[in-house]
Amino acid sequence: MAEKKLSGAGLRGQSAGETALCTVGKTGAGLTYRGHDIKVLADKAQFEEVAYLLLYGKLPNQAELDAYKARLKGMRKLPDALKTVLENIPASAHPMDVMRTGCSMLGNLETEESFEQQLDHIDRMLAIFPGMINYWYNFSHNGVRVETETEADSIAEQFLWTLHDKKPEPLHVEVMHASLILYAEHEFNASTFTARVCASTLSDIHSCVTGAIGSLRGPLHGGANEAAMDMIEQWTTADEAEEAIMGMLARKDKIMGFGHAIYRESDPRNAIIKEWSLKLSEETGDTNLYAVSERVEAVMWREKKLFCNADFFHASAYNFMDIPTKLFTPIFVCSRVAGWTSHVMEQRANNRIIRPSADYTGPEGAEWVDIADRS
Amino acid sequence: MAEKKLSGAGLRGQSAGETALCTVGKTGAGLTYRGHDIKVLADKAQFEEVAYLLLYGKLPNQAELDAYKARLKGMRKLPDALKTVLENIPASAHPMDVMRTGCSMLGNLETEESFEQQLDHIDRMLAIFPGMINYWYNFSHNGVRVETETEADSIAEQFLWTLHDKKPEPLHVEVMHASLILYAEHEFNASTFTARVCASTLSDIHSCVTGAIGSLRGPLHGGANEAAMDMIEQWTTADEAEEAIMGMLARKDKIMGFGHAIYRESDPRNAIIKEWSLKLSEETGDTNLYAVSERVEAVMWREKKLFCNADFFHASAYNFMDIPTKLFTPIFVCSRVAGWTSHVMEQRANNRIIRPSADYTGPEGAEWVDIADRS
Repeated sequence: MAEKKLSGAGLRGQSAGETALCTVGKTGAGLTYRGHDIKVLADKAQFEEVAYLLLYGKLPNQAELDAYKARLKGMRKLPDALKTVLENIPASAHPMDVMRTGCSMLGNLETEESFEQQLDHIDRMLAIFPGMINYWYNFSHNGVRVETETEADSIAEQFLWTLHDKKPEPLHVEVMHASLILYAEHEFNASTFTARVCASTLSDIHSCVTGAIGSLRGPLHGGANEAAMDMIEQWTTADEAEEAIMGMLARKDKIMGFGHAIYRESDPRNAIIKEWSLKLSEETGDTNLYAVSERVEAVMWREKKLFCNADFFHASAYNFMDIPTKLFTPIFVCSRVAGWTSHVMEQRANNRIIRPSADYTGPEGAEWVDIADRS
Repeated sequence: MAEKKLSGAGLRGQSAGETALCTVGKTGAGLTYRGHDIKVLADKAQFEEVAYLLLYGKLPNQAELDAYKARLKGMRKLPDALKTVLENIPASAHPMDVMRTGCSMLGNLETEESFEQQLDHIDRMLAIFPGMINYWYNFSHNGVRVETETEADSIAEQFLWTLHDKKPEPLHVEVMHASLILYAEHEFNASTFTARVCASTLSDIHSCVTGAIGSLRGPLHGGANEAAMDMIEQWTTADEAEEAIMGMLARKDKIMGFGHAIYRESDPRNAIIKEWSLKLSEETGDTNLYAVSERVEAVMWREKKLFCNADFFHASAYNFMDIPTKLFTPIFVCSRVAGWTSHVMEQRANNRIIRPSADYTGPEGAEWVDIADRS
């Protein structure tokens, strides 16, 4: 590897390895999965095609896609022991803790014994995660044991079906496909990097994903769409939103859903989800949430030249589909597990344990003092 | 930060941050915790003194140590929902998957709501982990619901007490103190680095530790003492061991428990645990396991100039105390959780999200092909 300049803490700008999966902001704005522009994928593909592209290395033909979706559909049953665990997690729990625990428990029941099995376990996680979180949600919040072996055609439909316990609107399924595609992969972000560090010890696939879920839980990483929702739902008109945002800017409050660590001019995912949010707004007869969101976007650009990232219009879009705010980040998991596990496979295929050094700032040569003589 | 040369993959030799907790191999052989030589700590301290040193920044005086041990003793009760989860994990599960799931479940039941609570949750994990793994072990293997609220004076004694469901020998407790001290902390190893990456998203303490457990599970990280045990228990005499090792070396088989990524001449932890292994060998009337271990050490040095690391004599030492081999790495967790969580606190105190870059090796500008036209 070439010599690089350390540009600060957090390994910013430091290469921690190679990937063939994704480019982020190579032109300042773009996002590609295996060379495919995110805009084209979100416009034309189903989520399963994108997961297949990431995991299996190519876009599937019709026969491969049909077989893949049928395979995933057959993997939706929750083991009884996993149901018991989910039923023992209270409604007050953080839904990302539920995802983390459910994934970890699955690893006890269906352990990856050899890396030759990795794709079986990955497909199982893709198939089971939507039903898993919604089983817990419906049981803990409504006392209902929801059926996870549905007739849903896709992961997108499965999420909405198991959440609301009924077949969802076709438009909503379309939006979920696009949303899952937008969130599927994003290079060496902190949760993906967590998965790769874990993979570099040659640990099992459930450990890698469990660790990644834990990192995505952090408010500096996942969760921005939830924070955006908490903010915008306070306002009933665009004018009220503008006044509030101006006040927040004056007080230097943190406003979630804007800007990005890597993108400089815009987040390529925003235009896509914004368009879907508009369609949903029209479909549901919304008169304020979309208008509020658009005004916030305009004010943030006018005042700060800050652009919406992928999360901001996800908030209203999910809300229009009656998805509880606390489940926004678990949806992110249902999607990003495709990216995480693609990175795990890539790490395993050309591995060296990830073990950096540290700059020591502590004391030298501390003297032992017997306990009776300590102050 | 200064300019540094990238010396290869895995971030080897790259600084990923600052720490005041630990130096590894600064003189080629040493290990210090907050400036204290590991040899002195393992010789003179109890494990709780070392955990206190790492977590609270100083060696406790007698009153502080007494209060700390009393506090930990009061935190050993397993919540009922956690017991239910443990009872639903089969005996065939990997014990590190049990640790990972138990820690994650605890996070659902006793969530860290604010970083001001971090030390409460850390102390709880230190107190509960030994009983947690042994509750699962005894239930799944022997059908016994072991009492975790024991009269044990220390974490060292608590581990052995809850494993064997009786007060352990004083010599064994002494060995466990030394063993837990040796494993407590080791700078930016892969599991600790996992915890820090997770912490850098400002996620909760249970996510950080859950992720770290998953990384320690990997055979390139934890587990070397288990592999060493599996090897040495095959041989009944030192001569047989020597012949077998010579054959393994000729076949270039991997021999676990030797050498180290950072130490160059010796692992400072080896002499300490070796001495304890000898004492236990004499106490138990062992006539072969210690002799086998010593011969393997001598042959590896004679043939390859490879030295024992911390794990090799841990294998025989734990075996002499009737600890099942599959619980060796979980003991590592019961100790290293002190180091992991000290690093989490350090990361939180001066945080920037850990988000490296990657070198892209994939295709550019892939063309979309409609599914009907794909090969």
